[in-house]
Amino acid sequence: MSLTDATHDPALTSWVASANAADCDFPIQNLPFGAFRRAKTDEPVRIGVAIGDQVLDLKLAAAQCPWPDGVTDLLVPLAAGDLAAFMALGPKAWRRVRAALSAALAENSDQGPFLELCLVPQSDAEMQLPCRIGDYTDFYTGIHHATAVGQLFRPDHPLLPNYKWVPIGYHGRASSIGVGPHEVRRPHGQVKRPDRDMPDVGPSQRLDYELELGAFVGVGNALGDPVPIDRAEAHLFGTVLLNDWSARDIQAWEYQPLGPFLSKNFASTISPWIVTMDALAPFRRAFAHPPGDPAPLPYLDSEFNRTHGAIDVTLEVWLHSAAMRQRGLPAQQLMRSNFLDAYWTLAQLLAHHTVGGCNLQPGDLLGTGTLSGPQPGQGGSLLELSQGGRQPLVLASGETRAFLADGDTVILRAHCTGPGARRIGFGDCIGTVVA
Amino acid sequence: MSLTDATHDPALTSWVASANAADCDFPIQNLPFGAFRRAKTDEPVRIGVAIGDQVLDLKLAAAQCPWPDGVTDLLVPLAAGDLAAFMALGPKAWRRVRAALSAALAENSDQGPFLELCLVPQSDAEMQLPCRIGDYTDFYTGIHHATAVGQLFRPDHPLLPNYKWVPIGYHGRASSIGVGPHEVRRPHGQVKRPDRDMPDVGPSQRLDYELELGAFVGVGNALGDPVPIDRAEAHLFGTVLLNDWSARDIQAWEYQPLGPFLSKNFASTISPWIVTMDALAPFRRAFAHPPGDPAPLPYLDSEFNRTHGAIDVTLEVWLHSAAMRQRGLPAQQLMRSNFLDAYWTLAQLLAHHTVGGCNLQPGDLLGTGTLSGPQPGQGGSLLELSQGGRQPLVLASGETRAFLADGDTVILRAHCTGPGARRIGFGDCIGTVVA
Repeated sequence: MSLTDATHDPALTSWVASANAADCDFPIQNLPFGAFRRAKTDEPVRIGVAIGDQVLDLKLAAAQCPWPDGVTDLLVPLAAGDLAAFMALGPKAWRRVRAALSAALAENSDQGPFLELCLVPQSDAEMQLPCRIGDYTDFYTGIHHATAVGQLFRPDHPLLPNYKWVPIGYHGRASSIGVGPHEVRRPHGQVKRPDRDMPDVGPSQRLDYELELGAFVGVGNALGDPVPIDRAEAHLFGTVLLNDWSARDIQAWEYQPLGPFLSKNFASTISPWIVTMDALAPFRRAFAHPPGDPAPLPYLDSEFNRTHGAIDVTLEVWLHSAAMRQRGLPAQQLMRSNFLDAYWTLAQLLAHHTVGGCNLQPGDLLGTGTLSGPQPGQGGSLLELSQGGRQPLVLASGETRAFLADGDTVILRAHCTGPGARRIGFGDCIGTVVA
Repeated sequence: MSLTDATHDPALTSWVASANAADCDFPIQNLPFGAFRRAKTDEPVRIGVAIGDQVLDLKLAAAQCPWPDGVTDLLVPLAAGDLAAFMALGPKAWRRVRAALSAALAENSDQGPFLELCLVPQSDAEMQLPCRIGDYTDFYTGIHHATAVGQLFRPDHPLLPNYKWVPIGYHGRASSIGVGPHEVRRPHGQVKRPDRDMPDVGPSQRLDYELELGAFVGVGNALGDPVPIDRAEAHLFGTVLLNDWSARDIQAWEYQPLGPFLSKNFASTISPWIVTMDALAPFRRAFAHPPGDPAPLPYLDSEFNRTHGAIDVTLEVWLHSAAMRQRGLPAQQLMRSNFLDAYWTLAQLLAHHTVGGCNLQPGDLLGTGTLSGPQPGQGGSLLELSQGGRQPLVLASGETRAFLADGDTVILRAHCTGPGARRIGFGDCIGTVVA
């Protein structure tokens, strides 16, 4: 992975003026991909790239702008609205298109006059799932989350003996993944209260969010062919924010022995823009397990993973209640953490997923699990922040929250900063609880 | 569900002579759907119906045979090779087509001379996945399996307190589901031996099969809209045999706290023919939990489920080792059980799956979990038959098996018989272990 090509020049600016604001999530150094439909139309879904407060419509851009030799062919699946087909082309194609888009959107580009006609304001774009998600796998890389939750469910042995050896994961539900803004209906289900002999069926009283990153598989592998860790990065296209909504009371009753099921499959929300691994390159950091912990087994270890396996992504959760909205109060930040605190890297997740021969396909989604920080205020879920519901948070509006209330909007945010790099952001991952 | 229409006349015979043999799995009373390609061609996949030892090619049949008014339109998705689109049309369409096929294939039908030209010998058909499986869920309805396995993993509390209330299930891996005959590579993975301080990585030494039924969702439901149990049957298209291959040593180390992952996702095998719920109608039986057990909660209970919820399906596992094949010995039957011993019905699984709002889609697959019988010799896996590997089976070839050896072919079989009904079968679900 080259960290020095022009797309990472922190001084590069765009003729799309809004992209050059210092706090903009989508400067020319980002160029994330998403799928959209023009508001209030029935047009087929199009693929676009976010730049400032605009979307570059790649169907229009492919047709109406001259491109360097070789790039036009690579734009064909994007122009056809098929991001998964583009993802399947692999890293060389991704970088060629990224470099071409970067050059075309740069200040003084000859292509500017053509592409100006291909911009759609983000406010006029209804974002869609970027691709069909064939399978969704959720991992458990947040060791601080695993420890905190383990303490609630199993006070005597919060972190199980396998945790520091196995990147624990499980299969999630693909059909119920949506793109924010997303309305999430409070799920009904079986709940067993300690003081009752039998379970009750009703709406969850302990509805929660989980702050995660999701990684999209770009290039798949054949059934029976594991991906070695030193080739794992080449299979990863990019990342999104992921809210793994969870009904804690349903989870506690159903999860043994086969893991969470209805407590997690009623909805998951991703942010609309896939921030590519190439855009994240300037924010790669060294990775190691904490001193005293076991080193990763050989199939989970590589030179690149040690020197660049981690990614410096600052993550935040914000809450905007119905009462806050009514009173004109802004959303309130609940916590901040960093993906650097995860116990396993994305390459390790992919290598582990395939070590037994499981086949991944373009568009598959891998969740990191809840990314809590080491401090008590850095829990990536209300379960942690409220200590299992025992210490409700007091909000700026005077309301309290042990778990989510109807009307609560949960906003996940993330950005990357670092020495010599332009700040990039993920955009908001937004979901609102409805009754 | 009508049990009296002509398609269930046990005396009905077909002009396809092989369908009339008493032990044929695919008499005119069955008419299961599958997808196939003519051997050694690259033709697009076609949808067919099994009749005797033939496949009725529905692309040819739609084009070359006159059909009653209204049926021609219903055959369009089938002729286009899109079984999921047909499944999405719902029970009225399924029954209309079933009745039309039954009439056309019946002895003395005027359509016979047209359809004779649309038959492909099953030996010339390479069977394919019948449809894209969006999501795959595996349940745990075999209470005798749950008890036996629970005793191995948790001797102090084999059956957890939720088992008799919650139809326990979890999400499985859709991408690695194949149609038999299927070669299954022995998976590698982490295994922790009791006498070692750290896990080893290598090929599973405790590879196993699991005998299950799979049910295909025909009609989906929207996210947030539970399917009440009295409408659940109308969402189910049909059933197949399902071998949920399992690596027990990998499973034991990885499965807590989020459930099985790599131990189950390296391969699953289904039988090629979907036996429709309509074909199973004569074999529906009354359903109740055993005396003394809790009655199903209201959302899992209906009049129809009580009177017809269960299905009388005899299930068998056969093993054919490499040595048996070399010595000309036939496959050996290892066990027999019946779906009547399951603790939950298919309608209960579907109602439970959606009670929190999870959306199902046409082509989704629901596994029953391992269907063991109540007797010690009725375990639906080697784990049970060999009592956790401690008492290896002695085969007719003189070989012993605690778990599967390379070269072992596992064959799942199923059939239905009953008073006043023609026997129908599922065809073989075949998979062979390779190194």
